[in-house]
Amino acid sequence: MNFPTLTWSNGAVKLIDQTLLPGTLKYIICRDVKTLWQAIKTLQVRGAPALGVAAGFGVLLGIKNFKGSDRQKFNKEFDQLCDYIGSSRPTAVNLFNVLADMKDVVAAHPQASVSQLKDVLKEKALAIYEEDRRVCRQMGKNGQKLIKQGGTYLTICNAGALATVDYGTALGIFYAAKEAGKTFKVYSCETRPLLQGARLTCWELLRAKIDTTLICDNMAGTLMQQGKVDGVFAGADRIALNGDSANKIGTYSLAVLAKYHKIPFYIVAPRSTFDSETLTGQGIVIEQRRSEEVTTFAGVVTAPKGVNVFNPAFDVTPHSLIAGIVTENGILKLAPPKAVKPNFLKKAQRLK
Amino acid sequence: MNFPTLTWSNGAVKLIDQTLLPGTLKYIICRDVKTLWQAIKTLQVRGAPALGVAAGFGVLLGIKNFKGSDRQKFNKEFDQLCDYIGSSRPTAVNLFNVLADMKDVVAAHPQASVSQLKDVLKEKALAIYEEDRRVCRQMGKNGQKLIKQGGTYLTICNAGALATVDYGTALGIFYAAKEAGKTFKVYSCETRPLLQGARLTCWELLRAKIDTTLICDNMAGTLMQQGKVDGVFAGADRIALNGDSANKIGTYSLAVLAKYHKIPFYIVAPRSTFDSETLTGQGIVIEQRRSEEVTTFAGVVTAPKGVNVFNPAFDVTPHSLIAGIVTENGILKLAPPKAVKPNFLKKAQRLK
Repeated sequence: MNFPTLTWSNGAVKLIDQTLLPGTLKYIICRDVKTLWQAIKTLQVRGAPALGVAAGFGVLLGIKNFKGSDRQKFNKEFDQLCDYIGSSRPTAVNLFNVLADMKDVVAAHPQASVSQLKDVLKEKALAIYEEDRRVCRQMGKNGQKLIKQGGTYLTICNAGALATVDYGTALGIFYAAKEAGKTFKVYSCETRPLLQGARLTCWELLRAKIDTTLICDNMAGTLMQQGKVDGVFAGADRIALNGDSANKIGTYSLAVLAKYHKIPFYIVAPRSTFDSETLTGQGIVIEQRRSEEVTTFAGVVTAPKGVNVFNPAFDVTPHSLIAGIVTENGILKLAPPKAVKPNFLKKAQRLK
Repeated sequence: MNFPTLTWSNGAVKLIDQTLLPGTLKYIICRDVKTLWQAIKTLQVRGAPALGVAAGFGVLLGIKNFKGSDRQKFNKEFDQLCDYIGSSRPTAVNLFNVLADMKDVVAAHPQASVSQLKDVLKEKALAIYEEDRRVCRQMGKNGQKLIKQGGTYLTICNAGALATVDYGTALGIFYAAKEAGKTFKVYSCETRPLLQGARLTCWELLRAKIDTTLICDNMAGTLMQQGKVDGVFAGADRIALNGDSANKIGTYSLAVLAKYHKIPFYIVAPRSTFDSETLTGQGIVIEQRRSEEVTTFAGVVTAPKGVNVFNPAFDVTPHSLIAGIVTENGILKLAPPKAVKPNFLKKAQRLK
């Protein structure tokens, strides 16, 4: 894709303000950590991998103006900085993983001067950035074999360039298939309540000149019934070691519908999404979000006062419904249900 | 329910302006057919059974001011009037069924004076109104046996008092269960794109003091996965003779999800919904609606310019996914798949 979602440029973070999409493409320059914190908080930047990269850059912004050479003082301010960045999106696992990586760097260099440490941290943040670019392209390469010429595919939420540095996970497969010369069609679920599918996925697929059709989430079943879907591709926010995958609310329904219609359902996510501390999906805690997200639509009140609301951010798709998980190391075949191979478990440790 | 959706009162039609719900409860008085035509056109009144009743009342408004006793002239103006009323919602089957009924009345009284004919037409329109009230209550009585004390049920769109004269089809079952002293919980799918579930169903269930929770359509699967749904109740716009049922888009997905989770899925609709000219669901033509319904909400644009849109108004649920169809004559048991009983087919003719 020809538009990076976020980059490190001249000592600042440059990022697309996603709250203005699809209407306006505008970049924000974050020269200090507070501006970046605000951008994360207000969802100007979102998407699990992008938030990880943003956290690394946030550390660079925060240490930039540290004066002096007192390591103890630096370490203390560094810890406070990490806490501050973490408070922008307390449920974003990738953000905390990267902050943990940055802390590891500091701990691994007890004798380094402040100036040396600044350099190593910068190297690390840029390495995380480059790793996202590499991993997404490799997942695309691996997964694009699943796209057939003339096929039609369904996706949910935004697992695209806008959720990563510049390529995407699930949508990266479409980009790689297009680069391989295939023509095909994509249906994008609008993805209530926050409409990332309508606002972001349609926007970036159209920019990539991929034939894109928007549907409401409740139209997926009838599409499949009409034989119009050859495969479903979704991202993941967290994957248990048995392959159970947490992703945007609505993903599980798509997986059940796909199973019923004998359509393969794939998760596309880097190995870093596997949570080595979670054995099955039952261990994944689902965040409940504000009821106003459901009782309003694009700022307009659409439900009567006082109604109860159920608004889980994610759902968990059991591995038995997943044909395969596309990773940068290849496709992990899952359905029909069978045990996860022990050698994959080893690979599935969090990237350090 | 204590608020009729529409009534005939002092030579006028009094109806709730549903476009103002859930914010404001306001009645419109239609003293002439043009005002009623406008109310139908702009969805101030909607819902298949309510539109049928409105069409009958529309005829009364239209003939009210006919002067003189020339039957030939009356017949001609009457036919034009029916065409005019029909043009308000060209895809509403119930509306045309009632207009056909009214035409039958005129044809059956060739010797009657204009004044006599006005009386018979008024009788007919009021009989259609009363029949809707009776049939809805009887469906409620028949279906409420399916509601268990402390149970939790899911519904879609608005098959309620606001879609009928004053009681509802699917929601009528909840009202009857409440009248029978049961306490239970209802989840209402918001029902994109027009949000009838959020706007109308939640509103009327709350008014009836039923424990109501709003969800986005894509949350139904995870609710079922968590064991939180004991049954699904939906209305129908048209039912083929084998039981295949057309209803608001999203209904089919709920039926598949219910099947997967072994939850009974019921259609609630009067016998008049069976279309004796349609043998199976494959014969039901699905109307595609404007793309703006999906790409905008209340005037706010939520998708990029130029994206394709798939926006079917309805979907068709095959009878094999339907545990039963609740009618005023009892519950037609369907799933597991078996042939429709021939004696039911006879009863399933359109009400004349």
